[in-house]
Amino acid sequence: MTRRSTARTTRRLAGGVLLFTGVLLTSQCAPRSPDSARANASDAAAAAQKVYVAPGDLDPYYMFASGGHSGQVYVYGLPSMRHITTIPVFTPYPATGYGFDDESKKMLGNLTWGDVHHPSLSETNGEYDGRWLFVNEMNGRVARIDLRDFKTKQILGPVPNVSGNHGSAFVTPNSEYTMMASRFSIPIPKGTYASVDKYATDYKGVVAGIKIDPKSGEMSVGWQILTPPFDWDLGDAGKKASDGWMFWSSYNTERATGKLEVTASQRDRDYIAAVDWRAAEKAAADGKGTMIGGVRVLDPKAIPGLLYLLPCGKSPHGVDVSPDGKYIIGSGKLQSVTVAFSFDKIQAAIKNKDFTGDEDGIPVLKYESVKEAEVPVGLGPLHTQFGPDGMAYTSLFVDSAVASWKLGQWQVIDKIPVSYAIGHLSAAEGDTVSPDGVFLVALNKLSHGRHLPVGPSQPEASQLVDISQEKMKILTDAFTEPEPHYAQIIKADKLKPVEVYPKEENTHPLAVWDVKDVGVTRQGSKVTVKMVAVRSAFYPQTFEVNEGDTVTIAITNIEQTTDELHGFGLLDYNTNVVIDPGETKTITFVANKHGVFPYYCTNFCSALHQEMQGYFTVKPR
Amino acid sequence: MTRRSTARTTRRLAGGVLLFTGVLLTSQCAPRSPDSARANASDAAAAAQKVYVAPGDLDPYYMFASGGHSGQVYVYGLPSMRHITTIPVFTPYPATGYGFDDESKKMLGNLTWGDVHHPSLSETNGEYDGRWLFVNEMNGRVARIDLRDFKTKQILGPVPNVSGNHGSAFVTPNSEYTMMASRFSIPIPKGTYASVDKYATDYKGVVAGIKIDPKSGEMSVGWQILTPPFDWDLGDAGKKASDGWMFWSSYNTERATGKLEVTASQRDRDYIAAVDWRAAEKAAADGKGTMIGGVRVLDPKAIPGLLYLLPCGKSPHGVDVSPDGKYIIGSGKLQSVTVAFSFDKIQAAIKNKDFTGDEDGIPVLKYESVKEAEVPVGLGPLHTQFGPDGMAYTSLFVDSAVASWKLGQWQVIDKIPVSYAIGHLSAAEGDTVSPDGVFLVALNKLSHGRHLPVGPSQPEASQLVDISQEKMKILTDAFTEPEPHYAQIIKADKLKPVEVYPKEENTHPLAVWDVKDVGVTRQGSKVTVKMVAVRSAFYPQTFEVNEGDTVTIAITNIEQTTDELHGFGLLDYNTNVVIDPGETKTITFVANKHGVFPYYCTNFCSALHQEMQGYFTVKPR
Repeated sequence: MTRRSTARTTRRLAGGVLLFTGVLLTSQCAPRSPDSARANASDAAAAAQKVYVAPGDLDPYYMFASGGHSGQVYVYGLPSMRHITTIPVFTPYPATGYGFDDESKKMLGNLTWGDVHHPSLSETNGEYDGRWLFVNEMNGRVARIDLRDFKTKQILGPVPNVSGNHGSAFVTPNSEYTMMASRFSIPIPKGTYASVDKYATDYKGVVAGIKIDPKSGEMSVGWQILTPPFDWDLGDAGKKASDGWMFWSSYNTERATGKLEVTASQRDRDYIAAVDWRAAEKAAADGKGTMIGGVRVLDPKAIPGLLYLLPCGKSPHGVDVSPDGKYIIGSGKLQSVTVAFSFDKIQAAIKNKDFTGDEDGIPVLKYESVKEAEVPVGLGPLHTQFGPDGMAYTSLFVDSAVASWKLGQWQVIDKIPVSYAIGHLSAAEGDTVSPDGVFLVALNKLSHGRHLPVGPSQPEASQLVDISQEKMKILTDAFTEPEPHYAQIIKADKLKPVEVYPKEENTHPLAVWDVKDVGVTRQGSKVTVKMVAVRSAFYPQTFEVNEGDTVTIAITNIEQTTDELHGFGLLDYNTNVVIDPGETKTITFVANKHGVFPYYCTNFCSALHQEMQGYFTVKPR
Repeated sequence: MTRRSTARTTRRLAGGVLLFTGVLLTSQCAPRSPDSARANASDAAAAAQKVYVAPGDLDPYYMFASGGHSGQVYVYGLPSMRHITTIPVFTPYPATGYGFDDESKKMLGNLTWGDVHHPSLSETNGEYDGRWLFVNEMNGRVARIDLRDFKTKQILGPVPNVSGNHGSAFVTPNSEYTMMASRFSIPIPKGTYASVDKYATDYKGVVAGIKIDPKSGEMSVGWQILTPPFDWDLGDAGKKASDGWMFWSSYNTERATGKLEVTASQRDRDYIAAVDWRAAEKAAADGKGTMIGGVRVLDPKAIPGLLYLLPCGKSPHGVDVSPDGKYIIGSGKLQSVTVAFSFDKIQAAIKNKDFTGDEDGIPVLKYESVKEAEVPVGLGPLHTQFGPDGMAYTSLFVDSAVASWKLGQWQVIDKIPVSYAIGHLSAAEGDTVSPDGVFLVALNKLSHGRHLPVGPSQPEASQLVDISQEKMKILTDAFTEPEPHYAQIIKADKLKPVEVYPKEENTHPLAVWDVKDVGVTRQGSKVTVKMVAVRSAFYPQTFEVNEGDTVTIAITNIEQTTDELHGFGLLDYNTNVVIDPGETKTITFVANKHGVFPYYCTNFCSALHQEMQGYFTVKPR
C-alpha cells in the first residue's frame, strides 16, 4: 500500500561548518540491508501495536510542544502522537476566537505573532504539578497557560531590556521563578540608539528572574542581572543538590558583529553561566542595583557572588541539569563529546577562587576544576534528557542520532539514527527529579522525504522512540507545523481539566443568564448588547444601531453541558469569537458600515446549529 | 497502558428537535458486550496494522480538510491520519509568514479570519486532476490553492451580493466554475439598509457562478441568479448525465425571521434548486439581467429555464450527485430516509411542465414525478459519498452512524456507529466520476471522551473507516482543530509538488541573487533594502534608517536546495516572514520607533542557524 522512500541524507550544513569544526562530516544515515527486511517487518508490526491507541482509548501521556514562529502551543497524546488540540498563545486564532474578543486582544497588545521556544511545566518539589505551562517567545514575552482549562491567562512583556527572549521559560523546582535571558544584546533600555560598531561596549545582555505568585501563577518582573553582550541561548534550573542556581549557555562571547558564523567562532570556548538566583533575589530585596527601563538591574561586577562562567566548547546549545541536580550537562554544539560539570566542583572552585580570569568582572572558573567527565556521545551534541536510574539521552545534530548513556559511568550504551538533524529531544517527565523513561520524542529539524510532499514549505518531523529497553527503537514518525523547538511530556493523570465553567464562577459584569435579561442599552453613541447564546438561538435575534456607534456585544453561553460551545461570527465586521459553556466574552467595535450584517453560530452545537443566526442592522447616518 | 473510556452518548439535540421531527431519539451508540472483548482485541490488532505507516513510508492518499472558522486548510495523510501540513488561506499564519508580507497581506484585505467549509479539488472530465484546490468561506470569498506548491494564490471577494457564502466552492466537472450561494439573504447590493421586518420582500438570496480560467486557474465573477430569501445550504455540480447543471439545498423557504428553529420549520418541505448553469452563462453572455453591485444578476422569473425547485424533506443539508450523474441524493436532515431524485425524471418534468406551483415565478416540480427512490438509511441523513460499483455512504447525524447502500437497489447494506454526531463524510476520490472506495472518513461533530481532556474547548473528532469490504470497520480516531466541515481525499500520486522555486522562474523586480547586489537605496523618506538570505547569514548583516522612514525589505532566499527555508523575524516590529528556496518576499512598514532591533532566522536552516542574525537600527529624529 505504501512505498518505501529512499532514506536520504538531507543533512544540510553550511560550508562554513567544516572550517568551524575541522571535523569530517560523513553520511551516517540508517543503513537498510536487504537481509534485515524480515526483521524490519516484524519490528514494524510490533511498533504498530505500541503506538496504536484504539478508538475510545486514551493516551497515557500529554506532550506540550512549542509551535515556534506559529506562536502557539500544540498538544499531542503519546504514544499515538495524535495532535489533540492547539492552544493559542501569541497569535490570534479564530478557531476559538482568541485575539478577537476584547480581553484576549488586549493581552496580545500590538503583536500578532510570537516565536515560542521552550514550554516549561510548573513544578512542586521538582515534579511537574500539572497547574500551569509557561512558554517564552522571542519578542521578550512569557505567557502562562492554565492547565485547568488549557487557556492562556497572562502574557507578561515585552519585558524591558530583554531582547530576543530565547533562554526561557525554564521554571525553578518550586515554580518560584520562570527565567528569561536575552539572545540579542542591545543598548538598554530599549529604544536607546547606538551604532552597531559600539557593540562590544554599549550593547548589553541581561538574564532575568520573573517571579511567579505561588497561588495564582501571576507573573511579575523580579530582577535582572547585567551581562556582557554575549548571546544567551538555553537554560535550565538547578534542582535538589543545585536548587537555587540557574544555568544558561552562551555563544558569541567574542562580542563580535558581522557574519557571526565566522566572527563568533574565533575562540575555542564559550561559557555556561551559573547564576545564584537566591543571591540575586536577596540583592534585589536589599535595594542593590540600579533601575533601568523600570526594572532593578544588578551588576555582577559590583555585586560579587551572583554569576560565574564555566568554560564550555564553542557555541553550546542546550544545558541540562541531571535529576539529582549534581551534574550540569553541556558542550560545544560541534564537539564529539558532551561534558558533565559537577555542581560540587563548581562550588569548590568558587570557594577556592579557582578562576582563570574574568569577563567584565565576572569570574571564569577553571574548566579542569569543574569538569566531571567528557562523554563520547558522537558529533554535534545539543540537548540531554533523562530517564530513571541515571539514564541520559543526548541528541546529536551532526550525527542525526540519539545516544544513550549513564550518569556516573559516562559511557555510551546505545545509539540510534533519527531522520534528520535532530534538535531538541523530550523524554517522559524528562525535566523532573524522577523521569519516567518509557518514551522519548526526537524533535527533528528536517523532514524531507519522510512525508507526502507538500511543496517548499515542509513540516517538521518528530519521531517517537521506545526507551523502555536498553536498545532504543524508533516507533513512528509524526509531523507538525513549524516549529517545535522543545516539548515537555507529562503523565496524563496529573491533569484534570474542567470542561464547563460553572455558572457560580462567572463574575463578568455583563453576563446574563436568562433570556429575559438580554437587551440593548445606549449611552450617547455607546451601545451595549447583553446577549445569550443557547441551543439553538442567539438572544436577541436581531438588533440595530446607528452608523458610527461604538458597539459592545457581551455574549454569555448559558450552557452547562460539556462540548456545548457556541461561536459568534459577524460577517463583514471581521469578528469571530467562540464562547465556552458558562463563559462570557465581549467584542467592541465601531459600526462604521451601514447595511445588514448576519451573525451566526460558527461552532457546531446541535441539530439546529444551522438555524442559529440573526441580523445586525446599521442605519445609515 | 491505556484505559478504555466509557462509550457515552453525548448527542446533544435541542429540546426543539422533538417538536421539529416528531421522532423518538433513542441512544444508538456502539454496544460493547463482554463477550466481544476477544473479537475487539483482534480487530484492534488488525486495525493497528492497517493504519500504521512505518517510518520512511508514505501514505497513499492526501486528505484536504476544511479548517472551519480557523480559516485554514489542514492536510492529512491516509490511512495514518497524520496531520502533515497546514495551508494558510484566510487567517494570517506566522509559521510561514502568511499575512505578514506585502503580497499576502494585500490578498487578505481587511479580514483576518474566514470560515472555510467545502474544499473542492479541480477536475478534468469529472476526475480530480491535482491542479488546484478551491475553498469557500462565509464572508463571501473563495480562494484558490495551487497544488504545485500548496500555497494560496488568489482570494476572490468578498463577492458582491453574496452574504454567508456557505453553498460553495463546488467545482464543475471540467473546472469551468466554482459555485457560490448566499446562506443569509440581505438587501442587495451590500450596504443597503432595510429593516428585518421587510425580510420576506426586500431581502434576496443569490446563487453565483465564479468563472475559472482553464490555464491559470484565475477566478473572476461570472453571473448571479436572484432567488427568494431562502437560506442556501450546500451544493454539488452535475456530472456526466447531468453535466451543465448545479444543485443546491435550502432551508427557511418559509422566509421567516426570529427564532428559526421554530419559525423556519413550519413547512414539511424545503427545496433543492436545480440550476442550468450553461443557460445562465448564455443569458449573461447575451447581456440579459441587470447589474447589481457591479455584477450581472439574472432574474429567473424574467429568464425562464434557469432554475427549478425540487421539493425535499424540510431543512435538507447535503445534496450529492452520483458518479454517473443520474441521481441527486438529498433529504430532510431529520428524516429517516434519504431520497434519490432522477435527473432524467427532472428533465421530463421540466419538459412536461409537471409543476405544483412556483416561488416568485420559479417553477416547483412535483415530488412524485422526480423522485426515484426513498432509501431507509436511518435517522438524520446529512451527506452521501460514493464508492465504486454504485456504493453509497450516507452520514446519519441523529443515529451517529454511517449507512452504506447501493444505487439502483436502494436498500441499506451495512450500518456502523460513529462517535459522535457525524456531519459530513468523505470517501477516497468520493466526488469524482470514479470513486476509489477503500477508505472513508467520518467527520464527527462531537468528540467528548474520545481524547485526553483539554478543557472546555474540545477538538473535532474524525474516524477512519475501512470500506474495502461489505462490512465497514472503524480503524482509528483522529482529532483536529475546529472545524472540519468537509474534506476531499485524493490519490497521492496525482500530486507532484515542487520543493524549490527555480531561480529562472523568479521574476520579482526586487530579487537579487548575488551577495554583491544587496544594498540599501533611498528616495526621500522611502528606503528599499534588497536582502539575500543564504546559509548562514542575511546580507546586509546590519542596516540603518531614520525614524519615520518607510522601509521596504525585499528578501530573496537564494538557496536551491529542498527544505532550505529561511525565516526573517524582526523583533518589536511585529514582523515574521518565511522565504522558501528561490522565493522573494517583501515587507513594508514605517520605522516609527527608534532604537536597535535585532532580526534573525526564525526557520531552522543549518548547524549555524543560531548565528543567522543582524541588526536594524533606527536613528532618532
